[in-house]
Amino acid sequence: MEVYGYFRSSAAYRLRIALNLKGLTAEQRFIHLRRKEQRSPGYLAVNPMGLVPALVEDGRALTQSLAIIDYLDETHPTPALLPRDPFGRAWVRSVALAIACDIHPVNNLRILNHLRDGLGLDEPARNAWYAHWVAEGFRGLEAMLTASPQPGTFCFGDEPTLADVCLVPQVFNAERMNCPLDAYPTIRRIVAAARALPAFQAAEPGRQPDAE
Amino acid sequence: MEVYGYFRSSAAYRLRIALNLKGLTAEQRFIHLRRKEQRSPGYLAVNPMGLVPALVEDGRALTQSLAIIDYLDETHPTPALLPRDPFGRAWVRSVALAIACDIHPVNNLRILNHLRDGLGLDEPARNAWYAHWVAEGFRGLEAMLTASPQPGTFCFGDEPTLADVCLVPQVFNAERMNCPLDAYPTIRRIVAAARALPAFQAAEPGRQPDAE
Repeated sequence: MEVYGYFRSSAAYRLRIALNLKGLTAEQRFIHLRRKEQRSPGYLAVNPMGLVPALVEDGRALTQSLAIIDYLDETHPTPALLPRDPFGRAWVRSVALAIACDIHPVNNLRILNHLRDGLGLDEPARNAWYAHWVAEGFRGLEAMLTASPQPGTFCFGDEPTLADVCLVPQVFNAERMNCPLDAYPTIRRIVAAARALPAFQAAEPGRQPDAE
Repeated sequence: MEVYGYFRSSAAYRLRIALNLKGLTAEQRFIHLRRKEQRSPGYLAVNPMGLVPALVEDGRALTQSLAIIDYLDETHPTPALLPRDPFGRAWVRSVALAIACDIHPVNNLRILNHLRDGLGLDEPARNAWYAHWVAEGFRGLEAMLTASPQPGTFCFGDEPTLADVCLVPQVFNAERMNCPLDAYPTIRRIVAAARALPAFQAAEPGRQPDAE
């Protein structure tokens, strides 16, 4: 199993956490996003979308962090990253998707680059864009998590799920961009609990071989 | 079962197609996005993220179109919207997520509104933003679909899956914004096949009771 990632990519960070929680090891390939290695013909053959992460197993490639994690959860079911009952599963997925569809994509590197190179926005304007969508998304996320159908240590109960796997990298990014998080006590409590686990710690961007 | 939607929302459109494919009916609630009804306290109690769609069953709310469709696929398994084998399932999910995470979110109504109201972009500049991300995303999507692990009438084989459920609304939106689609023959072929099915036709925005 080979995993293509980049230390600072939120989506690759999610996959690292999931692999660690399941005790799986993969051969790591590093795609340097700032050097635009994701646009090289070789990598586009693995992931035509030109994004990380990707997983290659038995010569077959899979892309999209949430699809890859779902695959790992089906092929390596223990520990489960999704609850057993359909409603709980869907709720955990909805938290993961709120992050993966509604918060992360509007603030990732390619968008920030386009705001700079395509629209000519200066750094304060780009930071304001980032903070706007974090505030917008975290407000809703905090309300979702506070009303968890299974309150506990983590997003859903007392074991980490796909929701926590997505939440921690998103908070890491918001902190890196100096977004105030005081208004989100439930998010902060859950992330602190997750960060106490070695699986989450070992996945941190600063601890990766390609970290700068 | 109640479904909250808006005729022109891509995400609500996906859910309508899935309900139709499964032959399910739901009581429809209309949330007028341009009148900002999604920010009303009543709707934020259903979906704190302030987005459509949402589904309420037995007094419990679920949000995020892909999570809701997954839930429906588990609770009403026939016809299945995901393949049976884990790799196929993950591949179909990866196509759906490429649309739901990497194409749609950067071009939805709230982003276009923010480009206008927050950044002061005029209509040509907003349309250029839209076209940029469609071209970027569709290039990758076309390559993914052309290399489908199970080529057929639809994205994966000869029955519609979650991938087609996401693809058709995305193409509808790109057409509405006059984005050229000549460079994507596989996308166009699959969408034409899907549009021949009554389940897709009945879900079209123009046929909804709240269409303007």
